[in-house]
Amino acid sequence: MKRDLIPPPVVWRLSLYLRELQMLAGEGVEKISSRKLAAGLHTTDAQVRKDLACFGQFGRPGVGYHVAELIQRIREILKTDKVRPVVVVGAGDLGRALLRHKGFIEKGFSLVAAFDVSARLVGKTAGDVTVRHIDELREFLQKSDIRLAVLAVPPQAAQDVCNLLCESGIQGILNFAPISISAPKSVTVRPVDLTAELEQLSFHVPTQ
Amino acid sequence: MKRDLIPPPVVWRLSLYLRELQMLAGEGVEKISSRKLAAGLHTTDAQVRKDLACFGQFGRPGVGYHVAELIQRIREILKTDKVRPVVVVGAGDLGRALLRHKGFIEKGFSLVAAFDVSARLVGKTAGDVTVRHIDELREFLQKSDIRLAVLAVPPQAAQDVCNLLCESGIQGILNFAPISISAPKSVTVRPVDLTAELEQLSFHVPTQ
Repeated sequence: MKRDLIPPPVVWRLSLYLRELQMLAGEGVEKISSRKLAAGLHTTDAQVRKDLACFGQFGRPGVGYHVAELIQRIREILKTDKVRPVVVVGAGDLGRALLRHKGFIEKGFSLVAAFDVSARLVGKTAGDVTVRHIDELREFLQKSDIRLAVLAVPPQAAQDVCNLLCESGIQGILNFAPISISAPKSVTVRPVDLTAELEQLSFHVPTQ
Repeated sequence: MKRDLIPPPVVWRLSLYLRELQMLAGEGVEKISSRKLAAGLHTTDAQVRKDLACFGQFGRPGVGYHVAELIQRIREILKTDKVRPVVVVGAGDLGRALLRHKGFIEKGFSLVAAFDVSARLVGKTAGDVTVRHIDELREFLQKSDIRLAVLAVPPQAAQDVCNLLCESGIQGILNFAPISISAPKSVTVRPVDLTAELEQLSFHVPTQ
């Protein structure tokens, strides 16, 4: 099945399956049925089998899935079976929080460089990297083969930085700036909207 | 329509409509058709009308929507028309980044208190608040009428803190800890999984 034709909720559930499987692997579980995998995720075994069927043949009837094998296959599908380098643009509070986050590397992402425009931040260490000036971004990216970027800049800067990233060879942007940005068709932009997340929660919780 | 029966994607699009409308209002736009509102969001006018119809009668045929009125109505639906207080538990990098984030208040959320267990953080200022020790959390919440919490603690602490929040009257939790947590049925938990967001992006971007 062509990647762009797979419904986004299916791809999202791959991440959920992967996390559940990694937890099971940590507990020493070696095999699991689709029913048990589904139960931990409040879904059905039919859904699990249907989702995975978009990507090929997995598991065996009556035997279930080898946990380690399914982890490997899902990571291949998500293209996180080898560590992918990611640049972070914007080394303010959120950017630095992401740079210091220890959970990315084991999931297949390495935040290898950070860029900012502020003299207060350039040269400072955040996580494992030293923040560079954004003027160095284009050359840095053109010398590398990095395809993924995290955008954690203020909204008024987001479109300009997005343009710069796209011109420099970035093909996927995780956008934390609370603004909609446009990119060429060849670039995937995924917005992460923390206010909208709070709004979704608020919708379900009565006010006092 | 009963809140819990409304499909989550409809509620999610309310946040998108709201943001678009607020941007339009900022540009001085007073009226808008469903077609134009839809166009800015890569959806259809039928979808916009269908989504809003879940919540009542909006706009007038041939006239469209009053932007300010629709903003107000959507905020009422999302229960963000009056500022809602939110506590943050976990004042590490991510917690502090959220506390310092300036965009929440204009969307109807005020992060009014922060709690942590670390002596290094308790007593420090983050955003507009001073971090308190988590031992004060229960009494603080029982004296207040705060219903919403952000959970930004390490995964191994997440379930315990979740239990404490639920016992203290919290009814909605935005969970940034990369672990699935259980809560009583009366409490809404919404996970925000930053690694999964990167995985979704990775899926669409070829490796080198």
